[in-house]
Amino acid sequence: MVYRIGVDIGGTKIAAGLLDDNLDFVAISSIPFMRVGGEAVSAAVAAQIRGLLAEAGIGEQALQSIGVAVPGSLDAQEAVVLDAHNLGFHGEPLRAQMQAHFPAIPVYLANDANAAALGELHKGAFVGCQTAALLTLGTGLGGGLILNGRMFNGGRGNGIEVGHTVLVDGGEPCTCGIHGCSEAYCSATALIREANRALRANPAGMLHKETGGDPARMTAKLAIDCAKAGDAAAKQVFDAYVGHLGSVVVSIIHMLDPEVIAIGGGVCRAGDFLFDPLREDVRAKCFFGSYAKICAAQLGNEAGIIGAAMLHYNKAR
Amino acid sequence: MVYRIGVDIGGTKIAAGLLDDNLDFVAISSIPFMRVGGEAVSAAVAAQIRGLLAEAGIGEQALQSIGVAVPGSLDAQEAVVLDAHNLGFHGEPLRAQMQAHFPAIPVYLANDANAAALGELHKGAFVGCQTAALLTLGTGLGGGLILNGRMFNGGRGNGIEVGHTVLVDGGEPCTCGIHGCSEAYCSATALIREANRALRANPAGMLHKETGGDPARMTAKLAIDCAKAGDAAAKQVFDAYVGHLGSVVVSIIHMLDPEVIAIGGGVCRAGDFLFDPLREDVRAKCFFGSYAKICAAQLGNEAGIIGAAMLHYNKAR
Repeated sequence: MVYRIGVDIGGTKIAAGLLDDNLDFVAISSIPFMRVGGEAVSAAVAAQIRGLLAEAGIGEQALQSIGVAVPGSLDAQEAVVLDAHNLGFHGEPLRAQMQAHFPAIPVYLANDANAAALGELHKGAFVGCQTAALLTLGTGLGGGLILNGRMFNGGRGNGIEVGHTVLVDGGEPCTCGIHGCSEAYCSATALIREANRALRANPAGMLHKETGGDPARMTAKLAIDCAKAGDAAAKQVFDAYVGHLGSVVVSIIHMLDPEVIAIGGGVCRAGDFLFDPLREDVRAKCFFGSYAKICAAQLGNEAGIIGAAMLHYNKAR
Repeated sequence: MVYRIGVDIGGTKIAAGLLDDNLDFVAISSIPFMRVGGEAVSAAVAAQIRGLLAEAGIGEQALQSIGVAVPGSLDAQEAVVLDAHNLGFHGEPLRAQMQAHFPAIPVYLANDANAAALGELHKGAFVGCQTAALLTLGTGLGGGLILNGRMFNGGRGNGIEVGHTVLVDGGEPCTCGIHGCSEAYCSATALIREANRALRANPAGMLHKETGGDPARMTAKLAIDCAKAGDAAAKQVFDAYVGHLGSVVVSIIHMLDPEVIAIGGGVCRAGDFLFDPLREDVRAKCFFGSYAKICAAQLGNEAGIIGAAMLHYNKAR
């Protein structure tokens, strides 16, 4: 039996898993993330990994690889974290830092959205796919691509920034400085922004009532719940959101014609209330008679760990 | 020496070339295209090919393959032309029709924009690339992708419709029925539309003078020439056009991070007047510190022929 370690480092916690050949979790743990730099974070993760091995009664020599997913950009050698703002990592040589703790075991790094797509390929929505796209609707709009049956990290190694493809050229300002990025229309943050505009415009509406008129209390879930409950202003906001998301999905279909497009992130918890009109919107706009299956991502928060655990396989093949 | 035939069937003419191992033309010819159906067109192309062989004094047995590029969509087996509106081909089994004339020689079909990208890969702007994108600015906005060092025909075989990715969601109506496609902003047709709006709004301007006030006389070249000559309204139209094209280029960079993005089609004849501000626009909008080389396509009208000639190689590898 071969075992693999997958680590998903986030801005609040570090989740790590020990997986067996079937990609089942033998052990899993979570520790708080602290902004103490790559050296100290690597030491904490190394202790976390040794804890998992001890818990499972498995020796280090049974480990095939260690994979680490980070919310940021890597250099083309996938050895240095160039920028991971939520971690305070800038030019951090994380692969070498981790490798120092496990000299005999191959260590790999990946962007977390890429790793999530790889996880879905091996155990989720993309099993058996050659071409697939993952969109994650959260604070931002993240994305990962499977091309040629493998995780794709950009043709020049810069990675994928699906959230910063242009959807409404010259439109809403995006955090990146461009106006009109997909992220500025399809992230949960964008849904909240639009719901708050509707809140201000409709002081008698449900959005106003549910938040007590306080935009700081607006959430994507609240906006969706008000739309579900039939509030006209909230429904209008949600319909526009779905239309924009449909256009992003259609653009991906027309560019890559993938087999599956999976959508993850908090907004997906809306379920059919999101997916039914989304599929209808794509059907109306799509050029092709048959096209990608559109579905929810399957792995949730474990996608990054599972993908990280498969980085060795993705490389070696 | 191995020889290959490449044929590029267009709405007005059929161009065919006999190429040697170095992808140099041994013979080339052009015949008018007539809307007489796939059987008769195949017979005409077969005669054209035999003419090339006779001219070069080369026997059929020296041919490695015959490739045919068409301006339309193919089925997933790349055997039937599903829709090529400019040819009047709908469900035309062109591969079998061609194969009947050359039973011993492998025949391949491809979309013409895909074939052009393959041509650029083997003899043009994409030589040595693993990931590259071709945009063709003409009546529409065409495109072809190189992924993993090969021509990419879509993950499900539907091909690529870069022109129908969404650029201004809900914006200008596109011929496809969607509002706001890239094609509706970046094709030569879109440039002409905007120039005619400026013509009507500025009866004293250069656009009005040069066309005699007749929108039917507007061309992309005329609009560009007026912008070059310093006409304020024409310059404004051209600047907006370049900005939109820059956003399309940035979206491709953020989605695929290609090594090269080449731009072809009539609008490119503007040269540095197009490419200088385009590169500046991309630089301002791009997320990555280093990104794709942006350049003119190199093969012009011969790209389709050369790509078609290389379809066998693209498959066989």
